Amino acid sequence: MTNIKDVAARAGVSVTTVSRVLNQHPYVSEQKRKAVLRAIDDLDYYPNINAVHLSIGKTHLMGVVLPYTDHPYFGLLLKGIAKKALEHNYKLVLFQTDYQKRVELEALQMLKTKQIDSLIICSRGCKWSIIEEHLQYGPIVVAEKREDQPVSATYVDHYASFTAALDYLYEKGHRKIGYTISRVTGTSSRDRDQAYKDFIKRHGLVYRADYIIDKCLYFEDGKKVIEHLQSISEPPTALLATSDQVAAGVMLCCHQMHIKVPEELAIIGFDNQPIAKMMNITTMEIPLEHMGEHLFEQALGGGVNSKEVTVSLIERGTV
Amino acid sequence: MTNIKDVAARAGVSVTTVSRVLNQHPYVSEQKRKAVLRAIDDLDYYPNINAVHLSIGKTHLMGVVLPYTDHPYFGLLLKGIAKKALEHNYKLVLFQTDYQKRVELEALQMLKTKQIDSLIICSRGCKWSIIEEHLQYGPIVVAEKREDQPVSATYVDHYASFTAALDYLYEKGHRKIGYTISRVTGTSSRDRDQAYKDFIKRHGLVYRADYIIDKCLYFEDGKKVIEHLQSISEPPTALLATSDQVAAGVMLCCHQMHIKVPEELAIIGFDNQPIAKMMNITTMEIPLEHMGEHLFEQALGGGVNSKEVTVSLIERGTV
Repeated sequence: MTNIKDVAARAGVSVTTVSRVLNQHPYVSEQKRKAVLRAIDDLDYYPNINAVHLSIGKTHLMGVVLPYTDHPYFGLLLKGIAKKALEHNYKLVLFQTDYQKRVELEALQMLKTKQIDSLIICSRGCKWSIIEEHLQYGPIVVAEKREDQPVSATYVDHYASFTAALDYLYEKGHRKIGYTISRVTGTSSRDRDQAYKDFIKRHGLVYRADYIIDKCLYFEDGKKVIEHLQSISEPPTALLATSDQVAAGVMLCCHQMHIKVPEELAIIGFDNQPIAKMMNITTMEIPLEHMGEHLFEQALGGGVNSKEVTVSLIERGTV
Repeated sequence: MTNIKDVAARAGVSVTTVSRVLNQHPYVSEQKRKAVLRAIDDLDYYPNINAVHLSIGKTHLMGVVLPYTDHPYFGLLLKGIAKKALEHNYKLVLFQTDYQKRVELEALQMLKTKQIDSLIICSRGCKWSIIEEHLQYGPIVVAEKREDQPVSATYVDHYASFTAALDYLYEKGHRKIGYTISRVTGTSSRDRDQAYKDFIKRHGLVYRADYIIDKCLYFEDGKKVIEHLQSISEPPTALLATSDQVAAGVMLCCHQMHIKVPEELAIIGFDNQPIAKMMNITTMEIPLEHMGEHLFEQALGGGVNSKEVTVSLIERGTV
């Protein structure tokens, strides 16, 4: 079996340097660090992880609570988290909840029992009081606006960004505006609904429940959206899609059915996913991957701090 | 703090039944199981996981090695794995390797040190001999065709499915056929390259290296593909894309540049992702989510068995 001395010899560095690389010690030159990692790879060497963990009192496991992994929104958050995890030699324990609170509570329990070092909650289901109870066991970071809780957060102000998108459509002359949402019961959905209601009220418009289309998450939901719009009287002239995936699906459907965008239907997406750029979709950019990276760093660093992520309008061809 | 008696009272069942549900005991009616899970959710109850683990000698953690999570291919595999994990109350430890062997070796080490119960390797980088060495510590399952190794596997025969797609294009009259690939150095890529070379030879066609377009993974790579095809002499009349994402990106680009599909360029994708259905793309269906579910069950069940997944041609409008 390869040992640490073989790695040092291969990399042309001292055993101490190899050990420092393995323990994420900061004072190693980038050049030496790369040589060590290459030697490790060449020799199929792996350190005795338990020994490493014991020496620093950590498991190097970080929990991530999220409803599912296969949607680009959470996929991009996870990508950012995973990128940093790889850099810092952390492994991620996935708690895919499918919106079951039980799974989230198990994640908190694993933090308590030191099976994970820290926890990122991308989509919270349980009460703040339960989160607070567990803060004594390790860093917990959330991806939503906190109130007064001593929890670190990286979040988007969904009320403000939804309002900005609606105001933009209003400026462009739209008075009948609908929106699609992934699930009306989510925390961010409540903020968006409030922004929508306030917008309607501020401009003296008519609130219509059939302008709000629930359960739209994926590209393939675009068809459902267009079918719905065609089934109602006086359909909206503009549509906010809370995911670029849905916006892209709607776009494609419009194309297939010869509905002109933006003349007959204006569309604005959210996230600025690659598909929005490619299909020239106007969108509200949320730097999800960067959010993920920041969530990881907050969870790693400990301490309590809160960061609002800037959302910005990207004007393209669909409004 | 809520205890197990509260849960039993709320669910209207005995404490023994609650305990059985928590321990995944098979002899509990679906109705009672649901009542218990609902009561757990209502009361924010969580069992002492360590006590549960100790009683059955397991961590209920399963490792998953994969290069990245944000591509639909691995995303769909992971979706299937995660679905079963939720059902069986398992958590997944993600080893996102970014194709670094070191991370894979750490996963094997965690199996050895009992930090995880079992391991699914979706994309293998290290030698078979190292995998075999670690089989004594717990089930290891791979997503590729095994040779003689006593490892469980759920896999696609990439040679056969690539050949089938090429033969289909040949039957349709195509003699200049190119393909896109995510990375030419991967295991499945070698099988595909062999299938391509054998196909070329069998039909007495000319092998052209510039008909093979490397590093194509995402929707947005479609543009690169079309630009490449326009830069070479006698471009192919048909294209195999090893991912529907790429096929869809190529399609969209063709549409934007007024290239007629399939008249000027025939396209066949792989996977049968939702986007292929929506964009009416002919594709080779790989049941990825089902593969993920099966990988989980193999890793959970132990024992050694191998399952080839059936790939089938879905004829739509792009060939």
